[in-house]
Amino acid sequence: MSQPFSEISADEHDRQQALHGPLAAAVRRLVAAGITTGADSETIRRAQVTLDAVADTLEQQRHDGPRTMLHADTGRPITWADPVIGLRNAIAPPLLIEHTESGRCWAEFELGAPYEGPPGRVHGGICALVLDHILGEVASEGLRKPRFTGTLTLRYVRGTPLGPLRAEAWVDRTEGIKAFARGQILDAEGVTVEAEGIFIMPAWAREAV
Amino acid sequence: MSQPFSEISADEHDRQQALHGPLAAAVRRLVAAGITTGADSETIRRAQVTLDAVADTLEQQRHDGPRTMLHADTGRPITWADPVIGLRNAIAPPLLIEHTESGRCWAEFELGAPYEGPPGRVHGGICALVLDHILGEVASEGLRKPRFTGTLTLRYVRGTPLGPLRAEAWVDRTEGIKAFARGQILDAEGVTVEAEGIFIMPAWAREAV
Repeated sequence: MSQPFSEISADEHDRQQALHGPLAAAVRRLVAAGITTGADSETIRRAQVTLDAVADTLEQQRHDGPRTMLHADTGRPITWADPVIGLRNAIAPPLLIEHTESGRCWAEFELGAPYEGPPGRVHGGICALVLDHILGEVASEGLRKPRFTGTLTLRYVRGTPLGPLRAEAWVDRTEGIKAFARGQILDAEGVTVEAEGIFIMPAWAREAV
Repeated sequence: MSQPFSEISADEHDRQQALHGPLAAAVRRLVAAGITTGADSETIRRAQVTLDAVADTLEQQRHDGPRTMLHADTGRPITWADPVIGLRNAIAPPLLIEHTESGRCWAEFELGAPYEGPPGRVHGGICALVLDHILGEVASEGLRKPRFTGTLTLRYVRGTPLGPLRAEAWVDRTEGIKAFARGQILDAEGVTVEAEGIFIMPAWAREAV
């Protein structure tokens, strides 16, 4: 299990990024427009027929290899399919997670209509999705060390408004195969949701500890 | 605040459902295809141009009214924009949540590539998203009573495989403005994630208690 992922060269990485980034961005626009459009029936029906035809074309050639690759130069995992940070996944806002020298993670991002629960507010489960991911990323040292969520506890301090947000995470402590991570989501006024998680190294990766 | 949502007649509900359901289904196909396609560069570039043109068209007429409506006949909220159960939201699988006579909720659904975290497994945060929603729905009696997530605790028993899944939730007890809900996600072998949540009635809705 020393090399579970295939490598991708820097050039091929940049080529695929320039190709798939705009495609996913267009699909993200469609996810939002599907919710907010007030177009007439005929326009919507025509849109649907066109979109199904594009889906037919894209589905004709399927890539069924591993969806995570390792960047040949940096050794970092490329998780383009991920529903939180994935360049190619239109479910993902996507978050661009920064790692500080002291080992903390943070991301600034914006959530609009597709992420809404109560009117004007982010769905509580979307806050959980973001926090699970950023805590997992800090606990696994940028996805370099395999660690899976053991438990996750979320405290909703107040409603999280749609719009610009920030998420932060850090490791409180580690004990053998367990990493104890903490994090939060903030708007301009301060913390809206707090999280604590225990992340566990899977059995297959423990021989290296 | 006795009527925070606008009503929709049964006929208009059915008309909009028949129109927007297939549009969102086409966008869901595109979300998945964006991740799994192995199409050549030229095909992907052409797809992107077409999708951006459709997004332009749909964005021209914006519907900025409330995104939740009440069904005139059943009095039930129609949450088509929701990221878990929303007919019009391509992020949502969507879950169709059933309510039993004893007050439990359950849903059977299938999660594919767009919801993947570790290879072959559902992203831990997606499990949290689903559980937050179904616990919230059981705690609010099918979204009839406004209740927001206070705390949510998730215990990941083992990896949740992509494929057919089931989610269940029930109210353990209520204490004044708080409802204590529990739930779980299951695959064919049993429970993969357990959840406990405290859901709180917002101040503006308390006068009716």
